[in-house]
Amino acid sequence: MAAAAAAAASPATAPCFPSTHCTRPALISLRFSRRVKVAASTDNPSPAFNSVTAFAPATVANLGPGFDFLGCAVADASLSLGDTVTATLDPSLPPGTVAIASITSPSRPSLATRLSRDPLRNCAGVGAIAALRALGVRSHAVSIHLTKGLPLGSGLGSSAASAAAAAKAVDALFGSRLPRDELVLAGLESEKAVSGFHADNIAPAILGGFVLIRSYDPFHLIPLSSPPALRLHFVLVTPDFEAPTSKMRAALPKQVAVQQHVRNSSQAAALVAAVLQGDAGVIGSAMSSDCIVEPTRAPLIPGMAAVKAAALEAGALGCTISGAGPTAVAVIEGEEKGDEVGRRMVEAFASVGKLKATYTVAQLDRVGARVIATSNLE
Amino acid sequence: MAAAAAAAASPATAPCFPSTHCTRPALISLRFSRRVKVAASTDNPSPAFNSVTAFAPATVANLGPGFDFLGCAVADASLSLGDTVTATLDPSLPPGTVAIASITSPSRPSLATRLSRDPLRNCAGVGAIAALRALGVRSHAVSIHLTKGLPLGSGLGSSAASAAAAAKAVDALFGSRLPRDELVLAGLESEKAVSGFHADNIAPAILGGFVLIRSYDPFHLIPLSSPPALRLHFVLVTPDFEAPTSKMRAALPKQVAVQQHVRNSSQAAALVAAVLQGDAGVIGSAMSSDCIVEPTRAPLIPGMAAVKAAALEAGALGCTISGAGPTAVAVIEGEEKGDEVGRRMVEAFASVGKLKATYTVAQLDRVGARVIATSNLE
Repeated sequence: MAAAAAAAASPATAPCFPSTHCTRPALISLRFSRRVKVAASTDNPSPAFNSVTAFAPATVANLGPGFDFLGCAVADASLSLGDTVTATLDPSLPPGTVAIASITSPSRPSLATRLSRDPLRNCAGVGAIAALRALGVRSHAVSIHLTKGLPLGSGLGSSAASAAAAAKAVDALFGSRLPRDELVLAGLESEKAVSGFHADNIAPAILGGFVLIRSYDPFHLIPLSSPPALRLHFVLVTPDFEAPTSKMRAALPKQVAVQQHVRNSSQAAALVAAVLQGDAGVIGSAMSSDCIVEPTRAPLIPGMAAVKAAALEAGALGCTISGAGPTAVAVIEGEEKGDEVGRRMVEAFASVGKLKATYTVAQLDRVGARVIATSNLE
Repeated sequence: MAAAAAAAASPATAPCFPSTHCTRPALISLRFSRRVKVAASTDNPSPAFNSVTAFAPATVANLGPGFDFLGCAVADASLSLGDTVTATLDPSLPPGTVAIASITSPSRPSLATRLSRDPLRNCAGVGAIAALRALGVRSHAVSIHLTKGLPLGSGLGSSAASAAAAAKAVDALFGSRLPRDELVLAGLESEKAVSGFHADNIAPAILGGFVLIRSYDPFHLIPLSSPPALRLHFVLVTPDFEAPTSKMRAALPKQVAVQQHVRNSSQAAALVAAVLQGDAGVIGSAMSSDCIVEPTRAPLIPGMAAVKAAALEAGALGCTISGAGPTAVAVIEGEEKGDEVGRRMVEAFASVGKLKATYTVAQLDRVGARVIATSNLE
């Protein structure tokens, strides 16, 4: 087992992540600390279980014109599109600490070795530490087992899925006491070291569905529930290409013309209205309409323009870059067209971008991070 | 009666409006034409009535962060906050033409004399002409009587109300045949000469409620229906101050920082979500949150910052500039606080802006332009 790492004194400044997972250096002095006490809190709850396993889904952030404030959760039926964390009470560790016991990645074995087992440099570790601290746990310690279902740096919210699953598992271990926003803020501790202080992956990874991040100060999330009849599916096509968040973020324009602002804002507003009203056609076309971010990022992903065109030609309702890429996301209603759209997008990546790619057809995940197994206290 | 003016050959280029109502000159060669045939159309419908009277409500455009793409209709119980148009078949006029028979303004008698009775230079005239043409009326002519309930240039959609009432009355006169968007486009013919090609007043003036103008090409309106339980009221405070749309528009920044864009977009998206979800608190605070347009326009309206502060202090949920101003609009839930909020805002205009002002408490008007009287064919 890796060295037991204590929860950070202040998760508001907890550093994070393995180098391959990080797009900027961890910022703070706790970076190399291995044993930091969880800051005293008021509660110190008793555990409700001996062990809890939680799953958190992949997420699509930005959704075109919703850059930095909209995201949604997606999952396939087998729950392979997401990360899983088991949090177990561990009396061998100092109370108030977290350790990473194991990391596995069944579909990508090499990935497990690339991820740090230092809990202060691993998304799941930071999420677990932040949740432990938010709960005020002082009398118990937790070891976690992380199973990565998502690739790194793909634009599918891999880091958020780890943090969300960890925070959810730890919270459930102690009786699911954290209010919604605190759970998201625990996950955000991890995210902020990866991609900045952006909740557009972590919020839907925890809450499921579409989530609008209205503001950070005050912290205000607006979950956007869509009608049950909306059969929204997503074709996620990930090329074999590294598009680091930092590079994608550096490509952003600093200024936008006020007309572009109005145009993008009205499309983002239309997207929100369409989600709430259950209009798949408008969801798709609004996602496709970004005139600010996508035009600067798409050229950095070989073949992206052709992939988008192929998706629309094959009958997708819309297509854009998922998060900071390189995954392309197309929207369809019902899953019938999924394979055809996926194949055409993969072909376009191959023929125009000279990139190997794989596709997955997922549906809107309305649940978010959830407990999938528990083992009782003895 | 004023000279009968034929409907413009192409309402897509119809000029418009009395000088006091115009913020830029009418652009086209038809400006001084008095007799132009309605372009031939396919339908030439028979009239359904001898006369129809329609009312269209005041509108609040922009709503803070929804600059240029959001608006809503507001009305008081007595329907004094809007314009009324009676459209009557007039066999004394050449077929296919429109004339303005009279203009009255009971609460502001001088206003009636300031408005042109040339139908090509009057909002109601242009709206009527555009509707007549959209209907394809060739065998009948219409004279209209306009009753102005709204002041000019106040930021309450005065021109849109005239155009909406006229288009609605003419359409009803011939059996209410125009699809929703065509009716709005008829009104937009008038608007485009007043404030540019913006439908954020005319769309809610015709449709009622909140309307999102998603795009113009293709023309796509999204009405945002809010739950019936939402008891949204608006305190409209109009100072005795002229703030021409052109000057207010010239004050806009040409470029915005991408962070401002994200911030305003997320607030506009929150506003849309709150309207659909019926959250008055978020509607108010989102309306108050514009960091792009309001900061450049508010300083041009003496006392506006103090008026906003007074509204919030008196318990309003939010406050911003209505349209291009100078009216300030505050949002409250229920009308109980309306008078107190209105008085405090009027006081702030007086003490800080040195401006006399009046207030009206209105509610969200969910109906839009409506027929309020008909007289049958003989």
